[in-house]
Amino acid sequence: MPDFVSDFMQIALEEAKAAAERGEVPVGAVLVNKTGEILAKSGNRTEEMSDPTGHAEMFVIRQAAARCRSPRLNDCDLYVTLEPCTMCAAAISFARLRKVVFGAYDPKGGGVEYGARFFTQATCHHAPEVVGGVEEKASEALLKEFFEDLRD
Amino acid sequence: MPDFVSDFMQIALEEAKAAAERGEVPVGAVLVNKTGEILAKSGNRTEEMSDPTGHAEMFVIRQAAARCRSPRLNDCDLYVTLEPCTMCAAAISFARLRKVVFGAYDPKGGGVEYGARFFTQATCHHAPEVVGGVEEKASEALLKEFFEDLRD
Repeated sequence: MPDFVSDFMQIALEEAKAAAERGEVPVGAVLVNKTGEILAKSGNRTEEMSDPTGHAEMFVIRQAAARCRSPRLNDCDLYVTLEPCTMCAAAISFARLRKVVFGAYDPKGGGVEYGARFFTQATCHHAPEVVGGVEEKASEALLKEFFEDLRD
Repeated sequence: MPDFVSDFMQIALEEAKAAAERGEVPVGAVLVNKTGEILAKSGNRTEEMSDPTGHAEMFVIRQAAARCRSPRLNDCDLYVTLEPCTMCAAAISFARLRKVVFGAYDPKGGGVEYGARFFTQATCHHAPEVVGGVEEKASEALLKEFFEDLRD
């Protein structure tokens, strides 16, 4: 049996690398249904799209929901290279995702294990299973390289 | 001098009414620049667009940012009939909005005065001025009527 988690995280990492090449913060995401079919994949596109909500997670959720013609994506799983921020955590909850697998932890901007910890709030009405730290080093390395290059 | 706050909330209320007529939760929003020009207005379109992120605030932020060709909307103000949820609060922060004026408070799903209280989190890197309870009764009445009709 192939290691699906690792496979999907590799695809998310490719999206993150492509984002960096476009000058975007290198975060990538893949949204998968319960049979393992990829419904959407994307990197960050905040600058390209002039969209303050343009995180990778938001694009894959919106694209997959449009494709499924439903604002609810029950039994679907999200793979993303960085801990989702608070905005994306709430969007994940609204979309009723089953599971979120993420790479690097984000103490400064995360909303799952840090900050608002949205899934633990009384105002959160659906919480997915969460697995953090998958391909953590590769995810972190992309972000570190990007921000080091910015400072040069 | 006209009462701009009241004028903009009336427009947001009209968007909320139009949302109800489309079968959407009646919330409406208007985004205005510092000279009082309306950059975008919208109601909720979650069901119509099959978009779990399809809140009124998200549409006006994305539309205004696209129009301004920038993911940052400094000096712009948001008028919305319901306290923003946690997702929208974070989007407001990312967009660098100057001020948020909202109608009804939302103890069950709000993210400004309730729940995650996102603007008070250490992971929130820009907090707007917030004014709640403007046209509160009219905003609440629309929501109450909508949910009562659903139960009939």
